[in-house]
Amino acid sequence: MRITVLAGGVGAARFLGGLKRAAPDAEITVIGNTGDDITLFGLRVCPDLDTVMYTLGGGINTEQGWGRADESFTIRAELDAYDASPDWFTLGDRDFATHILRSQLLASGQPLSAVTEVLCRRWQPGVRLLPMSDDPVETHVVLSDEAGRRTVVHFQEWWVRMRAETPAAEITAVGAAQAVPAPGVLDAIGGADLLLFPPSNPVVSIGTILAVPGIRAAVAAKTVVGVSPIIGGSPVRGMADACLAAIGVATSAAAVGAHYGPGLINGWLVDEQDKAAADDPALAGIEVRALPLYMRDLPATTAIARAAVDLALELARGQA
Amino acid sequence: MRITVLAGGVGAARFLGGLKRAAPDAEITVIGNTGDDITLFGLRVCPDLDTVMYTLGGGINTEQGWGRADESFTIRAELDAYDASPDWFTLGDRDFATHILRSQLLASGQPLSAVTEVLCRRWQPGVRLLPMSDDPVETHVVLSDEAGRRTVVHFQEWWVRMRAETPAAEITAVGAAQAVPAPGVLDAIGGADLLLFPPSNPVVSIGTILAVPGIRAAVAAKTVVGVSPIIGGSPVRGMADACLAAIGVATSAAAVGAHYGPGLINGWLVDEQDKAAADDPALAGIEVRALPLYMRDLPATTAIARAAVDLALELARGQA
Repeated sequence: MRITVLAGGVGAARFLGGLKRAAPDAEITVIGNTGDDITLFGLRVCPDLDTVMYTLGGGINTEQGWGRADESFTIRAELDAYDASPDWFTLGDRDFATHILRSQLLASGQPLSAVTEVLCRRWQPGVRLLPMSDDPVETHVVLSDEAGRRTVVHFQEWWVRMRAETPAAEITAVGAAQAVPAPGVLDAIGGADLLLFPPSNPVVSIGTILAVPGIRAAVAAKTVVGVSPIIGGSPVRGMADACLAAIGVATSAAAVGAHYGPGLINGWLVDEQDKAAADDPALAGIEVRALPLYMRDLPATTAIARAAVDLALELARGQA
Repeated sequence: MRITVLAGGVGAARFLGGLKRAAPDAEITVIGNTGDDITLFGLRVCPDLDTVMYTLGGGINTEQGWGRADESFTIRAELDAYDASPDWFTLGDRDFATHILRSQLLASGQPLSAVTEVLCRRWQPGVRLLPMSDDPVETHVVLSDEAGRRTVVHFQEWWVRMRAETPAAEITAVGAAQAVPAPGVLDAIGGADLLLFPPSNPVVSIGTILAVPGIRAAVAAKTVVGVSPIIGGSPVRGMADACLAAIGVATSAAAVGAHYGPGLINGWLVDEQDKAAADDPALAGIEVRALPLYMRDLPATTAIARAAVDLALELARGQA
């Protein structure tokens, strides 16, 4: 069985850990969001790809869900001593090594997909990890002050430094329209038996991947089951509500499912407390199932992944 | 008093510590060798500039003479886990931070001289530290095997990986002929009351600086006193003998003094055990003084620096 997953960072990485357990014999391809990528201190940082790679490869800081386990912060302290900026993005020493090597390989002319493969040779994540595109795409956030003056910041600056407290007037994936899917991406979608959307941010993770020309249409042609990142009106993790507000989508499982829509997804898993979504007319044409969606541990996460796979297989059989 | 010093790495840095004590009111400008510079993991490493900066700024590992005090090697271990090469050059985490920031600033378009100034803002070395040139110069070593096949390696590969055990057929400063002295270099030489050559490598440190067009002539026009890096037929530190062999100069205080020659240096400090050099006809036209030259501690080093300054002042008065 071939399963392809569009993935953001922490939520997707946890979900994938469950999926590997739920479908141990499946060939899993992960198409990772690169819109969060940022160049810091001249080094290319790919937070979502790394979170997936570290998590599935056993190198993640499991407490915080991102960054390396057993991490130290010597370089960050040194850069502070040099008054280097930005000072709002903290990278650990182990993590820095990944970015140093990635940047070196990119500078030598290798595309991000090839570099990611090199990095995964060490981590052996047990999935094929592809960036959505080898072309640079950066999510930028447009902020508008009371006088209507607009400023644009990198997504990471809004998310990390500003903690998404200033409302986003607009969120744009700069470069997405000109980007080409990375080698293997369209094949991994077209050749998949089923596609899954983990509970990743629908705007800046899944949404950004879908913004790369060719990907949305390829995904729409397949059986897709998504897992709601919203439970009971709140994001399970992160500040997805701030992103949803920017695109005028309510922070509810039903609204996110409807945002994807029946043209894109066939099945939608919501938490038990959101089971009313099954009767929401906005979700007509989408098979909604309610189950416990908190990924509190690996067994719970495995059960969620299994439910997603089972629903997708059921829907695929129905379509066939 | 304005003193300008052409400097390599460890020996020069120690000498400069003594010079700051010997001439506390002098304005000292250091023209640093950049021929040892190398790009590792995509980062620009300037070993000689950093050794001077760290030593005078109090950040050096005093035991080994180079690298940072209180250093850790997390990044190196991570790069090893990625099988990254080269594996023969070990950089510590604190040191990495310097190279990361330097590379970021260079990539932003700032010349090495400006970047060095930024780094020195933190270290406050108490001297003005200038790279010999903003243009890349890299010392390469030509090796010749028994069959006469020539291979070329970067100086650092020969020095660090091969420990200079394979004889060098030739040592070339690639890019030196096209390089331009960095801003301030020629002024610092022309405006100096006296010039000093610390006991740096005459081939790959002082020699490389002198290979930048314009520097040798500017130096030759001034009162220059050098300190022999050879004591009793051996380099005090490092493997200068291997470099001298490549240019056909004997490993002796007299031979190195004669190599610089009376057209370049006016005074030459040798160790007491080399005092016979004073009568060596090869050193005719150079004022030779013998004194203890081992820089075993700061007082000893200060005495050597004081002797160099005193001799230079004496010779300058004689010339005036």
